Amino acid sequence: MSNKIFEIKGINPPKTALGRTKMEKLLTASEELFAKNGFYGTSISDICKHAGTAVGTFYIYFETKTDVYKYLMETYQRAIKDLLAESIKSCKTRYDKEREGIKCFIKFAVTTPNVYNIIWGSLSIDRQLFVDYYESFAESYSRSLHKDEDVSHEDTESIAYMLMGISNFLGLKAMFTNMSDDEIDEMVDKTIMPAITNGILKSTTYTGDQ
Amino acid sequence: MSNKIFEIKGINPPKTALGRTKMEKLLTASEELFAKNGFYGTSISDICKHAGTAVGTFYIYFETKTDVYKYLMETYQRAIKDLLAESIKSCKTRYDKEREGIKCFIKFAVTTPNVYNIIWGSLSIDRQLFVDYYESFAESYSRSLHKDEDVSHEDTESIAYMLMGISNFLGLKAMFTNMSDDEIDEMVDKTIMPAITNGILKSTTYTGDQ
Repeated sequence: MSNKIFEIKGINPPKTALGRTKMEKLLTASEELFAKNGFYGTSISDICKHAGTAVGTFYIYFETKTDVYKYLMETYQRAIKDLLAESIKSCKTRYDKEREGIKCFIKFAVTTPNVYNIIWGSLSIDRQLFVDYYESFAESYSRSLHKDEDVSHEDTESIAYMLMGISNFLGLKAMFTNMSDDEIDEMVDKTIMPAITNGILKSTTYTGDQ
Repeated sequence: MSNKIFEIKGINPPKTALGRTKMEKLLTASEELFAKNGFYGTSISDICKHAGTAVGTFYIYFETKTDVYKYLMETYQRAIKDLLAESIKSCKTRYDKEREGIKCFIKFAVTTPNVYNIIWGSLSIDRQLFVDYYESFAESYSRSLHKDEDVSHEDTESIAYMLMGISNFLGLKAMFTNMSDDEIDEMVDKTIMPAITNGILKSTTYTGDQ
């Protein structure tokens, strides 16, 4: 993924264009090496070698290897938030927002499968990063659901986790089988939205064969 | 998690009680070290040292470090399948099966949070392990949904991924806040099952404030 420069705790953003280029090279190198050899199998010196910078350059911007990971995760988080916000900006109903948001996330998962490695991988690197990521996502999702009168549940936090689970796992399905945009649209329109609107189960009284 | 010995490709199961004990020690040590230092940050010699065995002992049972990981993953997969099968064995309807299955999985996630590290972590270690795990789970879930007349959707594979996502993400919520069994039961009975049965959204016509 392309890396924009922004400020977060633990990193010193570069002041010059040359500095930005160097930091971007370090981020790209880190992401490639983490994907290939894992976070623990990648050293700071590996990152600098791959980025073509001196080792000292790394420490101008980052204090630790975990800070780079944190920065990559923040990059994905911002990219997802921006994409989702853009995808639903003209939606008037919660139904429309969910439909467009789910389609948008699934398409992102197919084109950027590393999102799962980075976000789910954080659990094994810094558990708090992973917890913060999902708690903050759920909190803002829940707040947004709570405002919409067409959500028929009080516990919007649990509903937020349900919807996050639905998007994430349909994203996996789409990624595994490399679904096209048309196939994703069809799956969401024909199956997922009806299930979200009217439920997954037909009745609660069926007692036939198991 | 306790490790039962079973046969899978790439490992040579021990023939004697002493052998079983040694293999179990290697598996326990691997799981602890992978959780602490990551897969790539753990060497076979670390595992043997931590397990108190000679390095040669490792190679009696496993060919590679990835084989140990595969074995741990298979252990979790079997444990989850057995627990789910047990939890729904007296259920007559799909509604009951989903309710009990979801409760069971969420409670398992709270008591065994390492399940996420192991299963989601596999994506960064051997992508095919991760893909096989979810594709096989979805395939058998979909087959089971397809047999039940109270599932009102043709594309049961997408429905299976939806339901897997719901369980996995509610498991995260429960794990983050260390929910009790009673709290989990209440969340599933009051919010999740009504949402699965009747839908998450009240109407598709709301056009009020965003």
